[in-house]
Amino acid sequence: LQNGEHLNGPLLDHAEGQHFLTEAFQVILEEALCKGTDVDEKVCEWRDPEELRAVLDLELREGGETHDQLLQRVRDVAKYSVKTNHPRFFNQLFAGVDYHALTGRFLTEALNTSQYTYEVAPVFVLMEDVVLSKLRALVGWAEGDGIFCPGGSISNMYAMNLARYRAFPQVKLQGLWAIPRLAIFTSQESHYSVCKAASFQGIGLENVHFVKVDERGCMIPEDLDEKIELARSQGAVPFLVSATSGTTIQGAFDPLDSIADICEKHGLWMHVDAAWGGSVLFSKKHRHLVKGIERADSVTWNPHKMLLTGLQCSVFLLKDTTNLLKRCHCANATYLFQQDKFYDMSLDTGDKSVQCGRKVDCLKLWLMWKALGTQGLAERVDKAFAYTRYLVEEMRKREGFQLVNEPQFVNVCFWFIPPSLRGMEDSEDYRHRLSKVAPVIKERMMRQGSMMVGYQPQKERVNFFRMVILSPQIARQDLDFFLDEIERLGNDL
Amino acid sequence: LQNGEHLNGPLLDHAEGQHFLTEAFQVILEEALCKGTDVDEKVCEWRDPEELRAVLDLELREGGETHDQLLQRVRDVAKYSVKTNHPRFFNQLFAGVDYHALTGRFLTEALNTSQYTYEVAPVFVLMEDVVLSKLRALVGWAEGDGIFCPGGSISNMYAMNLARYRAFPQVKLQGLWAIPRLAIFTSQESHYSVCKAASFQGIGLENVHFVKVDERGCMIPEDLDEKIELARSQGAVPFLVSATSGTTIQGAFDPLDSIADICEKHGLWMHVDAAWGGSVLFSKKHRHLVKGIERADSVTWNPHKMLLTGLQCSVFLLKDTTNLLKRCHCANATYLFQQDKFYDMSLDTGDKSVQCGRKVDCLKLWLMWKALGTQGLAERVDKAFAYTRYLVEEMRKREGFQLVNEPQFVNVCFWFIPPSLRGMEDSEDYRHRLSKVAPVIKERMMRQGSMMVGYQPQKERVNFFRMVILSPQIARQDLDFFLDEIERLGNDL
Ligand SMILES: Cc1ncc(COP(=O)(O)O)c(C=O)c1O
Ligand SMILES: Cc1ncc(COP(=O)(O)O)c(C=O)c1O
Repeated sequence: LQNGEHLNGPLLDHAEGQHFLTEAFQVILEEALCKGTDVDEKVCEWRDPEELRAVLDLELREGGETHDQLLQRVRDVAKYSVKTNHPRFFNQLFAGVDYHALTGRFLTEALNTSQYTYEVAPVFVLMEDVVLSKLRALVGWAEGDGIFCPGGSISNMYAMNLARYRAFPQVKLQGLWAIPRLAIFTSQESHYSVCKAASFQGIGLENVHFVKVDERGCMIPEDLDEKIELARSQGAVPFLVSATSGTTIQGAFDPLDSIADICEKHGLWMHVDAAWGGSVLFSKKHRHLVKGIERADSVTWNPHKMLLTGLQCSVFLLKDTTNLLKRCHCANATYLFQQDKFYDMSLDTGDKSVQCGRKVDCLKLWLMWKALGTQGLAERVDKAFAYTRYLVEEMRKREGFQLVNEPQFVNVCFWFIPPSLRGMEDSEDYRHRLSKVAPVIKERMMRQGSMMVGYQPQKERVNFFRMVILSPQIARQDLDFFLDEIERLGNDL
Repeated sequence: LQNGEHLNGPLLDHAEGQHFLTEAFQVILEEALCKGTDVDEKVCEWRDPEELRAVLDLELREGGETHDQLLQRVRDVAKYSVKTNHPRFFNQLFAGVDYHALTGRFLTEALNTSQYTYEVAPVFVLMEDVVLSKLRALVGWAEGDGIFCPGGSISNMYAMNLARYRAFPQVKLQGLWAIPRLAIFTSQESHYSVCKAASFQGIGLENVHFVKVDERGCMIPEDLDEKIELARSQGAVPFLVSATSGTTIQGAFDPLDSIADICEKHGLWMHVDAAWGGSVLFSKKHRHLVKGIERADSVTWNPHKMLLTGLQCSVFLLKDTTNLLKRCHCANATYLFQQDKFYDMSLDTGDKSVQCGRKVDCLKLWLMWKALGTQGLAERVDKAFAYTRYLVEEMRKREGFQLVNEPQFVNVCFWFIPPSLRGMEDSEDYRHRLSKVAPVIKERMMRQGSMMVGYQPQKERVNFFRMVILSPQIARQDLDFFLDEIERLGNDL
């Protein structure tokens, strides 16, 4: 008895726990992976929030539940969750499942360590290093640095913080008050994380300058040059251009070589947000889309998008060889990064991060890469492009599908014009009526669970669909189904 | 044929993939969970980096590997990784495995969705809300807000960003140049993430003021009050106090009620970094340690530490009911947060985050909570305290163990004084020789793989061990073993 507590052995029974886990694994396999990828099953089992709350009984209580009740919980969570592994899930910039990556994720969870010191993560410290250097080699860098981050938004924040530290190292100690007002440049169609980063890091949204894009969504270099001059003439100090390779909506690629010329001319840090489009680097056929990326100072790239590693897997890659990442972020905590260890302490990479505990995100990518080889990954990228071409050509054969633009990548943005609106482009309420079409089709597909695809307005463009083709598990039939289904759901509108 | 590619069906075979996953699951069970928790097996299989690199063959190549090779990879990764689930892993502020939480993690991985909209994460949007409100209730708040973040460091950043936005909302648009120089207050023994946050968010390290602590590591309120006055007299604007509940090294609890009085008096945001100590809220016996926490504006709490949910699981909790979190962080991206959806759009909580894609971190905690009940979680916390008492009393019975302080929490900080140094406290090189003891014992235990515990210097204190007792799976024998093993490894020094 200690402190009024009996100390009669562990509170936790491993055999019982492993038994539960094993049974739950079968449920997960069945519900999330077998049914979850079966085209004869629904993509989602839609429930209105009130109803779903009632069905799930989410409330947490004083007492625990039984083995069987808990297994039922696992089943229910799977049942009412969206099946992002399903071949007809086209709603986000991720989709599908890779089983080797998934194995890597299970193993990561079972090993549960933190990616900060060689001492507690020996395998993963070495593995992260290898994966980062392979990715850097694809970018075109023989040397450099980098780190896995919890998402592309945070990778983009790293770029901003390093760029300003390189320009004004005193910012780390003295803050922004000690340096002149900064200016950031990015395109009008760049991802909103650039804005979130600017606010979060104290730079402020008004100091983000939005460069014009052409019809397809690519940054116009001449406007970049002008905006830089203008900001400078207004007393700000330009320090960072964040170009995008693969924009979120249109999948557009900014012209990196021209942007690099401008960055060089003005002495600015060039960041490439290739969170979405970075994976084209695997493809000999399509890597021309990121020509010039090797001239960047830093790159964000999310394998959890096109490469199917699963969330979260994002890398921030850096050309720098002067240990900038560590100098900018280090705090030298003695309880983790003791200076009298018995191994090479440069392997304790945790101080490069702005996090402390850091999830292991490299294993899933590494195991998948080992399984497929660089070649297998390239093949996936090439197929996604080919299926995109197929979809676009099929769309052209049908009435009612109108492309927003010729796709550069695997995003296909289009309007569906229902029969009642065809030929009515000149009528007064055409735009208004067209804007109502996508939301209705979307609601219908969700309620029926037949497929999922997203839509959005964009500047003067009213609501249009953004179809994304990235999963190696889809077949032509899935794309034919997609077109048929849009028609079926929208023909009466 | 499209684009020179054959479109002959999917590149991915589900049956084959599921077969691999199933076999790998058995390997994971065996290596990471059975052997990984067996006291007769090693905690770590130490290899020097060069040797480990050679054994693992981490290189990624053009071609892929076979089923059997890949299974061997899974086995090797597990073999050479540190067994953080092992009853003799005492090295970090996390340890041990909870099988229900682990099931939740596997399910999370298999479902692979992002926590931003009800549309793609219906179950998890509702679940996150329930879990956050239960945690808030433990803090003592009937209302409020909150979000799961990728780690406590980032949760602490949220506190800083919200505090400054509440004080100076123009910072979001105009940046720090538009507002006066800010000042942050935290104790000398607070976690380094407060410093990292201050640099990252553009405030700068020199604007973090370190408040003195008493012998045990608790913030001294009088010094806080003085430091605030001093900063103000030097032209800075105090806006945030970050108190710590459960410091990283000593496990000290800052006196929250007195700190709250001072924050009220000066009109400052009171944040409590309870990343480590928050879990005492479950315990009727020990929650007095955080008395006054309900007066805070925000709280960071990491269930991935004491509650064994596994990395990553951190919450940022907020007393605010004015939607501050969303107002501060929103970017209103139309492609995710359409304003013409067919369901209650307040359920699309993603814009509260500074991330875009956000891993689902609530399910593991929810499932474990369902399994154990609030009561079961409380019992675990109470046991950890009781075992800590046991260890401390056993230490007192042995020669050579010298406590740095009487523990407030489950951190036991101590020096091991080897026989050759006992009674030599007054000799000139005592401190120097003592500082060498912990590193040598640590190296020996790592090379033998018998257990893992951390050490560090702290201010004028030379290297001492920090033993952490948090896992419900340990028994008295593990603690007796711990003491015996320290003696065995250090008696000749
Ligand atoms: C008191 C305290 N706060 C914050 C953190 C950071 O949490 P994380 O490692 O999840 O970033 C830690 C980590 O040990 C901590 O001890
Ligand atoms: C171009 C681009 N950059 C960055 C991001 C953000 O990545 P994450 O969701 O991992 O934060 C996205 C997400 O869609 C994106 O499309």
